[in-house]
Amino acid sequence: MYDDPIAAAFGDLAADLFTTDPDLVAGFAHDESRLTERALPAGVLSPRSTHDVADMARRAHAHGVPLVARGAGSGLSGAANAPAGSVVLRTHRLAAILEVDAAERLAVVQPGVVTADLRAVAREAGLFYPPDPGSVAISTVGGNVATDAGGMCCVKYGVTGDYVLGLEVVLADGTVVRTGRRTAKGVAGYDLTSLFVGSEGTLGIITEITVRLLPAPAAAAQTLVATFPDLASAGRVVAAIAASGTAVSMLEIMDRVTLRAVDARTGMGFDPDTAAMVLAQADDQAAATTVAALALLCADGGATDVATSEDPDEAELLLEARRQALPALEALGDWLLDDVCVPRTRIVDLLEGVEAIAAAASLTIGVFGHAGDGNMHPTVIYDQSDPASRAAASRAFDAITRLALDLGGTITGEHGVGRLKTSWLAHELDPAALALQRRIKDALDPTGILNPGAVLAAD
Amino acid sequence: MYDDPIAAAFGDLAADLFTTDPDLVAGFAHDESRLTERALPAGVLSPRSTHDVADMARRAHAHGVPLVARGAGSGLSGAANAPAGSVVLRTHRLAAILEVDAAERLAVVQPGVVTADLRAVAREAGLFYPPDPGSVAISTVGGNVATDAGGMCCVKYGVTGDYVLGLEVVLADGTVVRTGRRTAKGVAGYDLTSLFVGSEGTLGIITEITVRLLPAPAAAAQTLVATFPDLASAGRVVAAIAASGTAVSMLEIMDRVTLRAVDARTGMGFDPDTAAMVLAQADDQAAATTVAALALLCADGGATDVATSEDPDEAELLLEARRQALPALEALGDWLLDDVCVPRTRIVDLLEGVEAIAAAASLTIGVFGHAGDGNMHPTVIYDQSDPASRAAASRAFDAITRLALDLGGTITGEHGVGRLKTSWLAHELDPAALALQRRIKDALDPTGILNPGAVLAAD
Ligand SMILES: Cc1cc2nc3c(=O)[nH]c(=O)nc-3n(C[C@H](O)[C@H](O)[C@H](O)COP(=O)(O)OP(=O)(O)OC[C@H]3O[C@@H](n4cnc5c(N)ncnc54)[C@H](O)[C@@H]3O)c2cc1C
Ligand SMILES: Cc1cc2nc3c(=O)[nH]c(=O)nc-3n(C[C@H](O)[C@H](O)[C@H](O)COP(=O)(O)OP(=O)(O)OC[C@H]3O[C@@H](n4cnc5c(N)ncnc54)[C@H](O)[C@@H]3O)c2cc1C
Repeated sequence: MYDDPIAAAFGDLAADLFTTDPDLVAGFAHDESRLTERALPAGVLSPRSTHDVADMARRAHAHGVPLVARGAGSGLSGAANAPAGSVVLRTHRLAAILEVDAAERLAVVQPGVVTADLRAVAREAGLFYPPDPGSVAISTVGGNVATDAGGMCCVKYGVTGDYVLGLEVVLADGTVVRTGRRTAKGVAGYDLTSLFVGSEGTLGIITEITVRLLPAPAAAAQTLVATFPDLASAGRVVAAIAASGTAVSMLEIMDRVTLRAVDARTGMGFDPDTAAMVLAQADDQAAATTVAALALLCADGGATDVATSEDPDEAELLLEARRQALPALEALGDWLLDDVCVPRTRIVDLLEGVEAIAAAASLTIGVFGHAGDGNMHPTVIYDQSDPASRAAASRAFDAITRLALDLGGTITGEHGVGRLKTSWLAHELDPAALALQRRIKDALDPTGILNPGAVLAAD
Repeated sequence: MYDDPIAAAFGDLAADLFTTDPDLVAGFAHDESRLTERALPAGVLSPRSTHDVADMARRAHAHGVPLVARGAGSGLSGAANAPAGSVVLRTHRLAAILEVDAAERLAVVQPGVVTADLRAVAREAGLFYPPDPGSVAISTVGGNVATDAGGMCCVKYGVTGDYVLGLEVVLADGTVVRTGRRTAKGVAGYDLTSLFVGSEGTLGIITEITVRLLPAPAAAAQTLVATFPDLASAGRVVAAIAASGTAVSMLEIMDRVTLRAVDARTGMGFDPDTAAMVLAQADDQAAATTVAALALLCADGGATDVATSEDPDEAELLLEARRQALPALEALGDWLLDDVCVPRTRIVDLLEGVEAIAAAASLTIGVFGHAGDGNMHPTVIYDQSDPASRAAASRAFDAITRLALDLGGTITGEHGVGRLKTSWLAHELDPAALALQRRIKDALDPTGILNPGAVLAAD
């Protein structure tokens, strides 16, 4: 009847549910990553309900059509990139906040809810949903769960997965399953919730998420900003704060390249001699004491300037500088963003290593990141139109990732493996661990239709 | 050569590695649970190293011999009970604390390390390993990880799994894999660490555990004890504290039956008219304020007596009363311990429901538990030698578990499914979710030699 599996699978769906219009489809070919494999998807699905998702998965399964779930497409690892012949399943119509239960401190949302909206709704209920990736204003909760997204809150509040109590998931064959619970604790069976968290759309399509919420922080955050004349002293101070376990709710760093880029973009007027800026916050009852102690520590550690503030607006402005890090670097040229995480005591080694890599390759590499977790984003600036520059950027990226592993770190702290780092996974995991990953994938998606090529290299 | 698979698999091992001596073997037939299936194991293995464990698993796999990992055997769900024809693998010789890294705030331990010993070593390093099941003095870290054990700390600090960064695991066929990482964050591949956490020895044998440690609490704990003349008002106060998200580090409850049992055992001299005792602690900088506020809340909520203390020794004494709850109830007769977790707002309903069940069945049921999480341990006292009493206890146990599910709760908050609740799992999970659990088991242990009959009913 139909000559291609896509038409056979989805051809009879209403136009608002399925389109192959090339103009529309082109907008959903890839995420925000660079140098990752992508193709034009064969079509785009827009389900309105779990029932729709299950139906679509059944159709895809029956006809062997690869399905790529897609939230906001803000990912930085190519996890939402479309392989050739695949169909993208968007979650933008699954965007209801189904429930906020203040007494139980939980919310139930559909995957297409924008992260900032969940945070706002929680705040209105006097509660707090901590996860705050830099993309908070656009990313979806479904995407955050599927990548186990981090952010600036992690040093105190942990990652997205730490807030997921339960999920509704559509499996590869269209079966709908529920995992987890609504209670504070529970150990009834294997923890499949955590298995789906961070699985990048390769094990199932998340259609509902139950998150736990915290009471609102006891106090308004106290903020500290310190500038340093050299990277090493900034790194040492950060490592000392992190290792001491000081109760910071944020501990970020930006290097000279990043600061200059942010300055160029925002005109904030940073001193051009500054080699690094450290930003910290504390939000508990002892916040003022903590920040005062950190100020001393920074001064002792060689800071040029140390400023503290208890003004929320001022704090927001400083955080805004940090949030502009990636967009600002983007303005410098083409960029290749890394996302490594090293032990806290090795932060200085990583920063110095990246400087050496940049110097050796005559490349500009900006570094910023979640210093309190050792989770850094060295960002290589290059010229995509110049093959030599592209190759040099790629080599520098590899050298940085290798360095992180050599320092006892991981190839990805929060952005995920996606399509950017499938080959790196074999460097981090031993063959037995990699084979076990594959076994899990095969058990949950035996025909391999869910986001093939993400996390694990295609067979 | 050998006429039975056990001898074929292990017959050539040295006597210190393998024994079938009936006197020795009898000591490892079951855990601390009651009314759970158990048999005399065919033998006991005592590996000295990961290498030994891998070798033993290979042998068991080759000869189709069921293997049951065993820590201290303090479990309360029959998870470590031996099925007929199985061999028990003890971890008592894998008891080294391999590393405590104060700067990175992590420790690496073998599974047979006693929980209290890890806590003590962390404390000596100025750090804090929060998990504190009531069995802390005897249970092993491996057993805690394999059950995702809870305890009194959970209301603030979460469960054992929240502290596990990475594992070394021997799979069913003897393959050794590593999961997780040593860094604060990391998303390289599927989260297999969380999958093994709570898997009760059915997916792999844990041979090494990397745990994260916290800085020591900022302040000595402040303690509150309040007594109530009726269960409902105690339950309401607890629910109000829990729902408000007050920063308590402990929030426990004991009912009249439990208090009288503890009193009989310890001679602490509790007022016999007390219907319930609530114990709370706070351990942050605002602890004194918090506890003062809780004292008011208890008084307003109808407490008979409210006492607060900042004396650590006094606190330890009160905690000891709580720790004696189970041993004290044990002295009343045979007991059947339940472990349900309900939404925080439904605690009163659970307590009143259990009272009604006890009255209707003319049974003594003591209730104590981790009230802050809604995680309660109703404990049915009965006479094992009387078939009618045994049947009544079993019916009451089922009614309590059913009640918890009806209140939106779970069949097990922290003790696990084990062999006690395999049939209940089908009540909590829908058929698709149960089938998915089975798929995971089959993917990791295709021949089913790892602790068959635990978590999932034997085929
Ligand atoms: C400026 C900027 C700042 C950023 N800052 C951070 C940061 O601080 N921390 C951080 O961790 N990340 C950050 N990111 C990366 C990105 O925003 C996160 O990975 C985010 O979680 C992706 O959400 P999304 O909705 O855009 O998902 P997408 O990019 O659409 O998809 C990401 C992955 O999730 C899968 N997926 C999406 N929805 C579902 C679903 N319902 N079911 C199953 N799978 C699904 C996709 O298939 C894909 O594999 C940043 C990105 C940008 C552009
Ligand atoms: C008085 C008392 C109080 C208790 N209080 C609590 C409490 O507050 N909170 C709580 O959660 N529990 C509590 N328990 C239950 C019990 O102590 C916990 O479940 C504990 O985690 C079991 O540890 P264990 O070393 O005794 O494990 P075991 O009972 O020996 O085994 C438990 C399970 O873990 C598996 N296992 C053990 N070691 C390994 C390994 N290395 N690899 C793979 N699987 C393994 C076993 O096969 C079994 O399935 C209590 C028990 C008692 C007797």
